[in-house]
Amino acid sequence: MRGNDTVKNDIEQAAKAIRAGDRVALARAITLVESAKPHDQASAQALLERLLQHTGKSVRVGISGVPGAGKSTLIDQLGLNLVAQGHKVAVLAVDPTSSRTGGSILGDKTRMGRLAAEPSAFIRPSPAGDSLGGVTKSTRETIALAEAAGNDVVLVETVGVGQSETAVANMVDIFVVVAIPGAGDELQGIKRGLLELADIIAVNKADGDQVERANRAAMEYRTALHILAAGHPNWDPQVLTLSARDNQGLDALWAKIEERHQAFKASGALAVRRADQAAAWMREIFEQRLLADFKGGRRAARHFQDLEDKVRRGEMTPAAAAQELGRLAGTKEAD
Amino acid sequence: MRGNDTVKNDIEQAAKAIRAGDRVALARAITLVESAKPHDQASAQALLERLLQHTGKSVRVGISGVPGAGKSTLIDQLGLNLVAQGHKVAVLAVDPTSSRTGGSILGDKTRMGRLAAEPSAFIRPSPAGDSLGGVTKSTRETIALAEAAGNDVVLVETVGVGQSETAVANMVDIFVVVAIPGAGDELQGIKRGLLELADIIAVNKADGDQVERANRAAMEYRTALHILAAGHPNWDPQVLTLSARDNQGLDALWAKIEERHQAFKASGALAVRRADQAAAWMREIFEQRLLADFKGGRRAARHFQDLEDKVRRGEMTPAAAAQELGRLAGTKEAD
Repeated sequence: MRGNDTVKNDIEQAAKAIRAGDRVALARAITLVESAKPHDQASAQALLERLLQHTGKSVRVGISGVPGAGKSTLIDQLGLNLVAQGHKVAVLAVDPTSSRTGGSILGDKTRMGRLAAEPSAFIRPSPAGDSLGGVTKSTRETIALAEAAGNDVVLVETVGVGQSETAVANMVDIFVVVAIPGAGDELQGIKRGLLELADIIAVNKADGDQVERANRAAMEYRTALHILAAGHPNWDPQVLTLSARDNQGLDALWAKIEERHQAFKASGALAVRRADQAAAWMREIFEQRLLADFKGGRRAARHFQDLEDKVRRGEMTPAAAAQELGRLAGTKEAD
Repeated sequence: MRGNDTVKNDIEQAAKAIRAGDRVALARAITLVESAKPHDQASAQALLERLLQHTGKSVRVGISGVPGAGKSTLIDQLGLNLVAQGHKVAVLAVDPTSSRTGGSILGDKTRMGRLAAEPSAFIRPSPAGDSLGGVTKSTRETIALAEAAGNDVVLVETVGVGQSETAVANMVDIFVVVAIPGAGDELQGIKRGLLELADIIAVNKADGDQVERANRAAMEYRTALHILAAGHPNWDPQVLTLSARDNQGLDALWAKIEERHQAFKASGALAVRRADQAAAWMREIFEQRLLADFKGGRRAARHFQDLEDKVRRGEMTPAAAAQELGRLAGTKEAD
């Protein structure tokens, strides 16, 4: 077992390298963060604590949308535009369905081939996921590492599985939903629950013979949102059209994102949002630990599912089941 | 301390009386359920377990809307209509701002004066609330008691404070949002997050010189929802106008509610929804207990807020704070 000083030194070196913009050091740190091994986790946490004061200095943008909406093309082109303007861009992904042996890992770098070749861009595929919670944790920490490494824009792509959008919305400043053209009966509905997360709806593929359909879709979303957000001081979702393929409208998208971000910062709302996100995450980690410790007990784990099934079938009240779980956990009971 | 047999006998008697429709017995049982005393809680849980198989046989409807939307008038008139049709109606409320010494307690029975006089209607104001969690728990259990007492319709009113709507949506089958007339710039926006909960939006006060404004509001909501719910098999919110004051459109409202409920039942979706709600509630109670046991420790409670504040200020990573909490809780740590 290596001495504490040696470990501390390693962390100091890693922190230094990351801050200096060493991409290999950054990639290594992210791998550490994604590792489930307790020893790796301890090193990862030490590194994150060392870098904490250097995090936070980016515009964090979540990008979601159905498969086929063209998210990858959009991120590729947007990333190129930003790099050309002098930004350092990190691109991450939350995809609990990804696996280590293919899928996202090769996919991302070929889907965003041009951006992947840029020195000022750092692309990291989604960690392999066995649970959304695990992927979410890794991604949050990767955002911090990417910021410490000097990236001033962090784009987090989500593939729209389960609660992925909500998870990503809870770790970014601005949330963009990418939609496809179509109107009336062909209008792509916005996934229930996604609507209230969106700051911007970007109707992509406004090119070729689709321009008209894209405009109509944008108009319908705009009408709907205007109606629903009427009179709300804090809800002002914007709708625009663009073509990632033709690099049309992406400057307007970024201008809107920056404008919002500036406004959030100026009003203090950004600081509050990020503080809320961090506090909620702390509580989440802790509650998960309490629950995991409990479920870790063999007897308890067996019974948890049994009890839940009884409750679902209406054979036991939820309170009685929870009480039984408490008894198994050895917690103090109310009476 | 009374013998176990005596207590058991009391519970048996109480259960019998409730099932026979004894309103005093029902009211007493609800008071027991709302009581924080451990002894009362134990009795309440025993009673609920005894009655479990007799619950579930009602149409559970959540009714929300801004102050001034006319919820009380609507519930009063709707309740009267249902009673006239032979239903037994229970009216509950979730209002974490209510207090024991006035407010809801007197308010409800005067606001729903006519319904309160009906033998086939049972009105219970919101329990006094120190937390939404406590009020939610009591209300869920009161629904069960009301059903065991033979009520085949349970209306749960929510006053729109904080997350009250979400809490109520998680304990009912159908969720209705009551809106007021107005259109264009005067359109009352639907509270963010409420939209996806709504099965029906009922624009009230469609009477006198407001009929036109009510119709326009309904048309705008309909347009917006049509756009946003496009292509969604499971999202089909309905919009209608009514006048609770003039008892116009309430039959149509109830017909829509019943139609939905029948469809849910027939498809099996209702059973799944209720099973999901019960399972989620079990997990919620248990996680709250784990957290309460933890916070109950004096050292831990003091530190919880300190650590959260540090995290909010960016002085500590959420993971490090959670780890510290874990240490204080004496839970097994990852390494």
